[in-house]
Amino acid sequence: MFSPVYLDHNASTPLDPRVLEGMLPFLTTSYGNASSRHEYGRAARKAVDEARQRVAYAVGAHPTEVIFTSGGSEANNLFLKGAAAPLKMGLVAISAVEHPCVSEPARQLARAGWRLREIGVEPNGRIRNADFQAELAAAPAGTPLLISIMAANNETGVEQDIAQLAELAKPVRAWFHTDAVQWFGKRALNFRALNAAGVHGMTLSAHKLGGPKGAGALIADKRVELEPLIAGGGHERGLRSGTENVAAIVGFGLAAELAAASVDVRGSQFLALRHQLERGLVEQGAMIFAGTAARLPNTTYFALPGIDGETLVGRLDRAGFAVASGAACSSARREISHVLMAMSVDPALARGAVRISLGAGNTAQHIRDFLAALTATIMQLKGMTAVAG
Amino acid sequence: MFSPVYLDHNASTPLDPRVLEGMLPFLTTSYGNASSRHEYGRAARKAVDEARQRVAYAVGAHPTEVIFTSGGSEANNLFLKGAAAPLKMGLVAISAVEHPCVSEPARQLARAGWRLREIGVEPNGRIRNADFQAELAAAPAGTPLLISIMAANNETGVEQDIAQLAELAKPVRAWFHTDAVQWFGKRALNFRALNAAGVHGMTLSAHKLGGPKGAGALIADKRVELEPLIAGGGHERGLRSGTENVAAIVGFGLAAELAAASVDVRGSQFLALRHQLERGLVEQGAMIFAGTAARLPNTTYFALPGIDGETLVGRLDRAGFAVASGAACSSARREISHVLMAMSVDPALARGAVRISLGAGNTAQHIRDFLAALTATIMQLKGMTAVAG
Repeated sequence: MFSPVYLDHNASTPLDPRVLEGMLPFLTTSYGNASSRHEYGRAARKAVDEARQRVAYAVGAHPTEVIFTSGGSEANNLFLKGAAAPLKMGLVAISAVEHPCVSEPARQLARAGWRLREIGVEPNGRIRNADFQAELAAAPAGTPLLISIMAANNETGVEQDIAQLAELAKPVRAWFHTDAVQWFGKRALNFRALNAAGVHGMTLSAHKLGGPKGAGALIADKRVELEPLIAGGGHERGLRSGTENVAAIVGFGLAAELAAASVDVRGSQFLALRHQLERGLVEQGAMIFAGTAARLPNTTYFALPGIDGETLVGRLDRAGFAVASGAACSSARREISHVLMAMSVDPALARGAVRISLGAGNTAQHIRDFLAALTATIMQLKGMTAVAG
Repeated sequence: MFSPVYLDHNASTPLDPRVLEGMLPFLTTSYGNASSRHEYGRAARKAVDEARQRVAYAVGAHPTEVIFTSGGSEANNLFLKGAAAPLKMGLVAISAVEHPCVSEPARQLARAGWRLREIGVEPNGRIRNADFQAELAAAPAGTPLLISIMAANNETGVEQDIAQLAELAKPVRAWFHTDAVQWFGKRALNFRALNAAGVHGMTLSAHKLGGPKGAGALIADKRVELEPLIAGGGHERGLRSGTENVAAIVGFGLAAELAAASVDVRGSQFLALRHQLERGLVEQGAMIFAGTAARLPNTTYFALPGIDGETLVGRLDRAGFAVASGAACSSARREISHVLMAMSVDPALARGAVRISLGAGNTAQHIRDFLAALTATIMQLKGMTAVAG
């Protein structure tokens, strides 16, 4: 079977075989509803409780702070709209580089009457403290304030200093949330420390770290009053109703545990591979976006001047390499990356954007093969351009 | 391994092995994000598209009317709150026997300013047409109207004549929704026919019919403007964002197809087993709730006067039979069943409520064994009462 080299782990990751093994009982013999009060139900409840402990432990949170959701998008929507609902209309401040599952619920709030501020980033993708403080200062005194800043960007991998930003927000009355979907599994994460700095909510997703699709969590400081998005039977302390997806939650727990245990080693491995990759890319004339900024160790976002990103991704796909152009999670939209626009990248260059995101299965041989394929593809494309031009 | 006889299929069902087999590729080699534009992404997208066709075909809908969600609770919340959002405050009418994942979002609307009417049921659990019409007539002219009436009740199995109720609602301006989570897989279902009668939305869940937990759908008439609960990357035509849970969606498609193909045969099998069961129960002195009403063929809800339901369920569990007391999906709450209260059942009798819901794997031997265990348990409990009294 043809099995392309997978270099798109920020979009989704393979399910770790150890995780699948742990899930299988809940896809076969142990099929109870975790709310049922019989043998099958108790087995499911126990598994969900254990997974909650694993996730909490992996991110330095208390199990009662874990609200399981169907994934990161739901958790982001739950925090933003759930925290806004009990408040009077206020100001919602997000960065200009958030994933749509933060910026879209923020826009829903704006349509409902909230003021929306988008905090710009520097050309290196980072938020400047002074800009952040200026935005907060613009909020009228006494106005409820919701802030959501992603820990690491899905396209560029650029990291924000969330603890520092939260500290800066402490003087104003705000709920501070961070989308840590891309961060978790690639960098160490401690909610207790972030919470002490002033972070009240944090979003996680299982399928970005070797876990299954269909599970995520909002880690939430219990002082935040949340109106549930999905109301009903009162699951997840009344904050997220619906029969628990036991198998996926179990998988999430195992994946979180494995990710937390291996994050340091994996980070070093990623960095070595990325260095190899980026050296090769620069030799081909590539621009690395946010090349000098603090970035996730697995992520490289680049463009080759004069070469269209979509075209390149298509060619590489046929050559056996799965990489992403633009933002993979919402790539049904063919606009230029809003992340690169916020970084003031020349639109012509931004159209060339291609993302490579490494995962646990990638090797130095994958990088060598990829670079060879890239060289061949570039020559092909330039040849075609020469003929066509 | 000790493996109790499972008689709680309205709470959740075992995953059909054929369904799991179809899901496994998407838990192993085919791990792409369906939004990615490479080999892995395309395989995932194709699988989601095929599942959408299977679900649509199984319920007589068009694939573009299928909005995949994480389950029934989300789909019910999506319809109620999603359809309400673009309207001015109006009236939301639900039955008094809805699952909490309908009544709770309706209460959220009520807290936001909507008028909420609960339509009572007869002692047999059915809505009287005259009562339904009277409630609709009470709505001021020109007021937006949302109606949600479940197709079949999760506790009693009582069926409502949804097509008829929708026809009655046609003269008023209303969006009519039905929670068909318990109906689908036990009775034939055709959205096209219901839609012609005036039904605009219908909720389905995979794990009630041999599919996995974590997948459901709202089938929605495209004339209904819906505000997404989960906004973001624009998945599901912008109505439900979030990376598709490919494996669960694939499983839902297969389970829906299998359920639709076998529903008639299975219905007859259920009826034969239920007849055997209920004859035995009546011999023991049990009251069958809504015994004479149109009911799902797999559901029996009964009480033995003087015997507490919780206690009986616990005893039967230890004897190797998994059955439910009260409403299993939200049985963290120990109140008396709101469904039985709406049916004007004596609270003392309602406290004895036990539900048996049959599934594809149940046999006549299971019923015989269950009845024998029940007889022994009753004798034990009555003996204890005699000693204690």
